[in-house]
Amino acid sequence: MIYIGIDIGGMSIKGGAVDENGKLLAKDAITTNPDAPSDENVKAIASLCDALMKKCGLSDADVSGMGVGFPGTVDGKTGIISYTCNINFRNYNFAKEFKKYHSFPVYVGNDADCAALGEIHFGTSKNVKNAILVTLGTGVGTGIIVDGKLITGNKGAGGEGGHFVIRVGGEKCGCGRRGCWEAYASATALIRQTKQAMDKNPESLLHKVAGEEGCVSGKTAFAAAKLDDKTAISVVDKYLKYVAEGLTNLGNIFRPEVILIGGGISNEGDYVIEKLQRFVTRYSYGGKRNPKIIVKRASLLNNAGILGAAALCL
Amino acid sequence: MIYIGIDIGGMSIKGGAVDENGKLLAKDAITTNPDAPSDENVKAIASLCDALMKKCGLSDADVSGMGVGFPGTVDGKTGIISYTCNINFRNYNFAKEFKKYHSFPVYVGNDADCAALGEIHFGTSKNVKNAILVTLGTGVGTGIIVDGKLITGNKGAGGEGGHFVIRVGGEKCGCGRRGCWEAYASATALIRQTKQAMDKNPESLLHKVAGEEGCVSGKTAFAAAKLDDKTAISVVDKYLKYVAEGLTNLGNIFRPEVILIGGGISNEGDYVIEKLQRFVTRYSYGGKRNPKIIVKRASLLNNAGILGAAALCL
Repeated sequence: MIYIGIDIGGMSIKGGAVDENGKLLAKDAITTNPDAPSDENVKAIASLCDALMKKCGLSDADVSGMGVGFPGTVDGKTGIISYTCNINFRNYNFAKEFKKYHSFPVYVGNDADCAALGEIHFGTSKNVKNAILVTLGTGVGTGIIVDGKLITGNKGAGGEGGHFVIRVGGEKCGCGRRGCWEAYASATALIRQTKQAMDKNPESLLHKVAGEEGCVSGKTAFAAAKLDDKTAISVVDKYLKYVAEGLTNLGNIFRPEVILIGGGISNEGDYVIEKLQRFVTRYSYGGKRNPKIIVKRASLLNNAGILGAAALCL
Repeated sequence: MIYIGIDIGGMSIKGGAVDENGKLLAKDAITTNPDAPSDENVKAIASLCDALMKKCGLSDADVSGMGVGFPGTVDGKTGIISYTCNINFRNYNFAKEFKKYHSFPVYVGNDADCAALGEIHFGTSKNVKNAILVTLGTGVGTGIIVDGKLITGNKGAGGEGGHFVIRVGGEKCGCGRRGCWEAYASATALIRQTKQAMDKNPESLLHKVAGEEGCVSGKTAFAAAKLDDKTAISVVDKYLKYVAEGLTNLGNIFRPEVILIGGGISNEGDYVIEKLQRFVTRYSYGGKRNPKIIVKRASLLNNAGILGAAALCL
């Protein structure tokens, strides 16, 4: 069986032909055009499909399905894209329009949801029935899987795990509320927290590290913490506590077997994972009485978007 | 079809024989014995069953199934009660033991989960596929239904919606964490908030109302607010904001069609429901772009426990 996975990003649209074991047979990409009309975007994605199929010598009959991961609100049941960022699709029936170009079935999903599906089909959490993938990047994305199925909510508008409030009346969030988890646990939030600590601590090594990097990034505090800088250690500890509080919240609601951490912050590796695991184990509801929730790093890395989108077909 | 529903409470164990439309054919109860061994509890519940069946003239062959709602952690798949409060069942296979007494199938569930099931099968939310029931009582209980099925988590240890943190580092919660929703949104929390306001405002009518009631209860602040007492209005508004923040959190994760409010606080009626609806509509993720979440009062009231437990059989 061969599937096509399409990962719609802000800069580029990546595509891949994938076999049933998650092996990437071919890969290609086009540039995202934020100003193009929706129909033209579909045409461009169809051409990307053509290119992938040509590379592998495939006809429509050889392709078992195509999955497309969108950054936004997507109704997997109807194939309608309610809303996306960075590319022009609004209340648009992508699946229907795409049928003009290819005859194989088309599935659409939210990109964070796709990434979670990819992990349980092609990653190190293969065959796990209950899993949550949390992406710590510009925002906080969540893909929630219960009994092998995505939690997407009415018309695909659910699964917004980054947007539960962990501090009533707290930091402003892009969604219009105050105190959302995303406003504390995203890389964007870590950058804000790092800058605040730098303002208060002119002696901290954070200044030196940021100077060498040329800017304050999600890595700055981790790098300075490794140099034993007290301020940086305190920034990282506080940040990871925010992350862990949200993981524990999701854990108490869903009690999954695993929580997977993805996104830029996950590149900090074991240091991050071990601290998060300790907190989640200690504070999850019912303590040792209840089954443990394993925290680990997401495994698909660079190809997560393509593989996850392809997994929509399974 | 006739089902038996058993509702295990701290004071009494209530049972009912229920038809497929949720009509209660017979009702009975026994006293909960917190010190009795597990096997004796099962025997007592079997006798309660006998009494109900006798009242309706039923034999085992007439009963399509029995559902039992427990306050605690219950694995519906295996029939094992991991943990309960007020009655002695710990890592106990209730379903297996009960087979000694009756031949019909036995299903077990958490009581908050049962109450939610009851609403979508027998209540005013009949046929709703995605619903959350939130019980605002001594604690905050949640029953979460996605695509008609309960979210219970690994070994039934999930669905603990009262135990997500809405204020990192906030009020102590019975579960060992700080800042859980339950520590702000339960009737117990409202009583604490009312007492704190009374200490700070000796002129408030809260004192008069509490004096007439003989104590500070979950009703005190609502009663004084109706007398236009400023302090009481502020207590109620703040409390309902906490409740609404948690509802919006659950709404963003699950995007259900309805959120149902049960428990003692729901007796305050439209005043509470309307305020909660306004907040949820205003602050839910994606605003008017996404489908509305209806907030309404749970409908089954006194018989919710029995009907909900019976709904486990469906």
